[in-house]
Amino acid sequence: MTQTRRYDVQVITAFVEQLFEKAGADAEVAQVVTQVLLEGEVLGHRTHGLNLVSRYIGGMLSGQVKAQAQALEQVSDSGVSSLFDGHYLLGPYCVSRALDCAATGASAQGIGIAVVRRAAHIGCLAAYLKPYTDRGLVALVYSSDPSVGLVCAHGGVDPVFTPNPIAAGIPTQGEPILLDVSMSTVTLGLVGQCRDAGSKLPHPVLMSNDGQLSDDPRDFFSQPQGSILPLGGQAFGHKGFALAILVEALTSGLAGHGRKDAPDQWGASATAVVIDPRFFGGLQAFTDETSFLGQLVLASRPVDPERPVRLPGQAGLALRRHALEEGVSLSAHVLDDLDQLAGQLQLAPLSQALAQ
Amino acid sequence: MTQTRRYDVQVITAFVEQLFEKAGADAEVAQVVTQVLLEGEVLGHRTHGLNLVSRYIGGMLSGQVKAQAQALEQVSDSGVSSLFDGHYLLGPYCVSRALDCAATGASAQGIGIAVVRRAAHIGCLAAYLKPYTDRGLVALVYSSDPSVGLVCAHGGVDPVFTPNPIAAGIPTQGEPILLDVSMSTVTLGLVGQCRDAGSKLPHPVLMSNDGQLSDDPRDFFSQPQGSILPLGGQAFGHKGFALAILVEALTSGLAGHGRKDAPDQWGASATAVVIDPRFFGGLQAFTDETSFLGQLVLASRPVDPERPVRLPGQAGLALRRHALEEGVSLSAHVLDDLDQLAGQLQLAPLSQALAQ
Repeated sequence: MTQTRRYDVQVITAFVEQLFEKAGADAEVAQVVTQVLLEGEVLGHRTHGLNLVSRYIGGMLSGQVKAQAQALEQVSDSGVSSLFDGHYLLGPYCVSRALDCAATGASAQGIGIAVVRRAAHIGCLAAYLKPYTDRGLVALVYSSDPSVGLVCAHGGVDPVFTPNPIAAGIPTQGEPILLDVSMSTVTLGLVGQCRDAGSKLPHPVLMSNDGQLSDDPRDFFSQPQGSILPLGGQAFGHKGFALAILVEALTSGLAGHGRKDAPDQWGASATAVVIDPRFFGGLQAFTDETSFLGQLVLASRPVDPERPVRLPGQAGLALRRHALEEGVSLSAHVLDDLDQLAGQLQLAPLSQALAQ
Repeated sequence: MTQTRRYDVQVITAFVEQLFEKAGADAEVAQVVTQVLLEGEVLGHRTHGLNLVSRYIGGMLSGQVKAQAQALEQVSDSGVSSLFDGHYLLGPYCVSRALDCAATGASAQGIGIAVVRRAAHIGCLAAYLKPYTDRGLVALVYSSDPSVGLVCAHGGVDPVFTPNPIAAGIPTQGEPILLDVSMSTVTLGLVGQCRDAGSKLPHPVLMSNDGQLSDDPRDFFSQPQGSILPLGGQAFGHKGFALAILVEALTSGLAGHGRKDAPDQWGASATAVVIDPRFFGGLQAFTDETSFLGQLVLASRPVDPERPVRLPGQAGLALRRHALEEGVSLSAHVLDDLDQLAGQLQLAPLSQALAQ
């Protein structure tokens, strides 16, 4: 059992920002990256939260990952369409800037799009959305990583794609709907967790390197590697496969940088699209409709009476509210990592700063 | 066995246009609608091809469906963002105009979006895409119908959504990639076909009205109605469910007209998004990447050696080529319908015009 304790959001924010700055990040970059990782943490995406701080700072210290805002190059800009080259700058900063840029276009003309190539690791897409839904904007993010192949084509054996998530924030009259789903059945994270736990996957969604359907993570982590089935599985995987291709086209395709370039460094292609409902049927009519739809969904009878139907993001937003009110619960493991980093950077440990 | 014979595309086009015009459509509307239905037919979407002509003309003659271009009202226009109200004008005309409008925005600034509310039946989304990929544009279409509920929420019993397809045309250096996938496991069409054939569905993707998983179409066509599982099924249906909500938001939400208005007439909300790669990494880099990706996919080893991996749209485009070269193969049923319509409208039958 991992021990946890709760820490105030402001204190933790200041501490993590300081870590990034001490490791060489601009104040602006440190602030944005900290905010995104903390948002992932409080939404419950523990594998894409503050546990990434040590990985990100490790990348900075080794020189692989940049942390200066000026590294982000704007390659093109039409007012509503932009391309950025991140040159392996910390990904959360790249994606946040892309979303801001797309939001500017949306506020001016109803829609904006910004594509980023070569962003360093971008964390959890769900963590980017709420600032935009709070302003009454619809925000979408697509991403892929052209240096990695994990997911097979429908009917194929060999790994071709990354899980290629689509995320979207949708304003309602209450809390936003926040969705973040990959176009694969499962993510690499889950396959790795099952391997580490010595367990099988809950469903046979792996393809062994000799073309056998499997629920055994060892059939993925083999030599040559196995693959993960696209969303839809054996029966309906043509759909997840088609959507995975769409995500590749909208990210690496528009970026002009992808699998054809055989990049040898982990780096995301990400595309942000922001839409302002005021340019269509109006924000009121939009949130009337999304709220009505949300109520329809929540009112639908559950298959299992113990498990009421929920909206995408609903559980994460409840965790988020609790964390902001009661403090952020950090695992001992993450706390140890942060304190070790602090020591390395000659800063006081978080555990000390927070001991009351 | 349904008997088929082949008819020249030009002859059939002129004949169907004449049917629409004689039934009261503008020449422009007749031309666009005929082209979209014929494209659906030749791509192999037989349930969304020329079999719809009699349904569409039936709607026109009963007064439910409009067929004058001027019925399409442009509610807003920012240069890149537009809203149209179709007032139940023939859907293929509405969607084609929306795509043209979005393409104009894309050619000017990189991206354009046009939303249509209250389009009459819009046929098959795949049929709209090729004119745009031929111009080096990426074209996306989303649609939903707020008057219909067929698909349940993940974990829910009651029907909430339509299948909510996402379609996209992606240019490559060769033939485009054309995808058109619903956010449900199966479509209503398949459930109906299985009921008519007295067979089960190939997979248990229905939910009976008392919450039992089923492969029996009678459990869908019950009183009260059953529902269809979202893409991903029982294990991963949270993903199809989330994407279905996104499609509702991008269509009926932006349209400002949806389930909240409880429309009692079948009518689509549809959203067209067009993107011009020249405003990002360039068309050459885009098609380099999509062609490279296509080759990767096609080169992946098939699970079943008899069934090589295919790209989305590949089979349909092969059928299309064959039809354009050898003539369109019409079923006796569709031919009978068309000839009956011709008689009703005091025109010579197609079978006569084409008998050589």
